[in-house]
Amino acid sequence: MTETWKERGRSWFRPLGTALARRGVRPDHLTYAGLGLSLLAALLLARGDFLSAAIVLGLSGLCDMLDGDVARATGTASTFGAFLDSTLDRIGEGALFAGLAHYFYTRASGGSIWFRGNLEGSARWGDPDGQTLAVLSLATLILAFLVSYTRARAEGLGLECKVGIMERPERLLTLAAGALLGPRFLPGVLGILFLLTLVTVLQRVYHVRRLTRSTAP
Amino acid sequence: MTETWKERGRSWFRPLGTALARRGVRPDHLTYAGLGLSLLAALLLARGDFLSAAIVLGLSGLCDMLDGDVARATGTASTFGAFLDSTLDRIGEGALFAGLAHYFYTRASGGSIWFRGNLEGSARWGDPDGQTLAVLSLATLILAFLVSYTRARAEGLGLECKVGIMERPERLLTLAAGALLGPRFLPGVLGILFLLTLVTVLQRVYHVRRLTRSTAP
Repeated sequence: MTETWKERGRSWFRPLGTALARRGVRPDHLTYAGLGLSLLAALLLARGDFLSAAIVLGLSGLCDMLDGDVARATGTASTFGAFLDSTLDRIGEGALFAGLAHYFYTRASGGSIWFRGNLEGSARWGDPDGQTLAVLSLATLILAFLVSYTRARAEGLGLECKVGIMERPERLLTLAAGALLGPRFLPGVLGILFLLTLVTVLQRVYHVRRLTRSTAP
Repeated sequence: MTETWKERGRSWFRPLGTALARRGVRPDHLTYAGLGLSLLAALLLARGDFLSAAIVLGLSGLCDMLDGDVARATGTASTFGAFLDSTLDRIGEGALFAGLAHYFYTRASGGSIWFRGNLEGSARWGDPDGQTLAVLSLATLILAFLVSYTRARAEGLGLECKVGIMERPERLLTLAAGALLGPRFLPGVLGILFLLTLVTVLQRVYHVRRLTRSTAP
């Protein structure tokens, strides 16, 4: 996705961020709200309540987008704020893919003991391979983490590493679209998400390799 | 764990590292071997072959320990090497906890479709709550990632962040001990691992908070 496209999307919501900042909302309020909504969306995914999950995911993404704007508008951007924001984002995203894996594992076995969601409904669609999709969800969880990890690790080594087609907003948007489309299309969307996230990790590894080669003596 | 204790353990294996370096082994050979062994151990855990998993995990940990020694002995320590080593470590560790989650989910549902391991054997021990243990494995996966992520992210922000009781060698050692003790004790060991990894993440977040407070204007 191009920066221009993303920037245009973000600019629509900037007035909302400024308005919130004027009403005394601090960026860490939005960070915590975003995490809470991500965890709720993860629970809804685990239950198989995909429509609700998609809505909650959208709200969580909005909080994510706005916390940076509010920080800038209130002049409260801080190093610890940036650190905490990144860390909680990882928890929220990890929970989402873990929730999806839980759904596929328990669908394969005929129902979760924890979350009595609409598994009967999804059984109508048949179950091509719940365990395979669960493993795919876990692989995507690991890759999504790696996208963020490779950037942080590269920056720790003094290198810039922002390349890649599939950052967190794009991943969440794709997941929300998959949830919205429902159990019939979710496996396909998950497959696309897995592949594009894998490509992003490889892009970053290749980028760091190129940077370190060019600075080598 | 104290640095001294760790350093003493590592020093036993240093001659082996030097010997390997003299025989033309390069650090990235050991990095790839370590990842391969981690993925194999993850498969063995997913099947419920705990004794084999423990042995393979031990070998993987040895590769991990030696690659740094070999890099120093051959003078081939590089920025990209450090980056790749960290990245592959995360994949290997993610796979281990995902494998454990797979085991618990499929044990709860009466068997994996992919790996026909000794699930019958472990059923003898009864199944207090396969799904709960699976969710605990996934939570530990996310926390283990966060231990590494918080450090990398802090370093990216220019802060040092090596504190914490439960780094990767300790986590792998605990997991190997759990696998060695078998399915009866594994849930207890997993619970301890979860708690200590959570403590480590909190230690790091608190450490970064303290560092940023003290440097604030």
